[in-house]
Amino acid sequence: MRDFSWTAAEKKIARAAFDLAVGRELASVRQQVESMLATSPDVDAVWRVHDYLSEKRREIDTKYDYRYSVLPSVFARLVREGWLSEADLHGLAAEKVEAITRILALGRP
Amino acid sequence: MRDFSWTAAEKKIARAAFDLAVGRELASVRQQVESMLATSPDVDAVWRVHDYLSEKRREIDTKYDYRYSVLPSVFARLVREGWLSEADLHGLAAEKVEAITRILALGRP
Repeated sequence: MRDFSWTAAEKKIARAAFDLAVGRELASVRQQVESMLATSPDVDAVWRVHDYLSEKRREIDTKYDYRYSVLPSVFARLVREGWLSEADLHGLAAEKVEAITRILALGRP
Repeated sequence: MRDFSWTAAEKKIARAAFDLAVGRELASVRQQVESMLATSPDVDAVWRVHDYLSEKRREIDTKYDYRYSVLPSVFARLVREGWLSEADLHGLAAEKVEAITRILALGRP
């Protein structure tokens, strides 16, 4: 992937979109944990919650990589997974939007 | 510590006490998780829950050791920590109750 240069305005948009996605994903993780606890009265439910959180933490730590060099791939994945809409990336230069769209069209980055 | 022999009746009492303690401790872990979630609206609360569960899991996995050779120490610790009362161990032979009491008197097993 080309190394784009990012203007200050684009960095601000990128950071906001990134934070929005991680916030949405963590809210969904919390909802899942609450639902697991609400629907599992058995005492071992806490270990299933722990296993689930261990898996999500590994996944989220890997996925949310804020290096500008990989950000278009990260955004493409977040759009594919539904954590961002293309509207959330509004304001990025056409070259970046095209890169994201190209990665989306290719399948898993 | 002496290696005691355990009658079938004692093994049954020991197993029930052990399971009772682990059930109580896991119920308390669950309550703590529910309380953390209820009082922390921020999205990062799930990672604090994860850290807490990782620590508890390590602690509980180590503590609940059902080898008969170490069971008096395990029971002494569970009594000290409040997960068992001496009444929950009623029916064990005097030698075991004395061993537990002796460990309790010595402090941390």
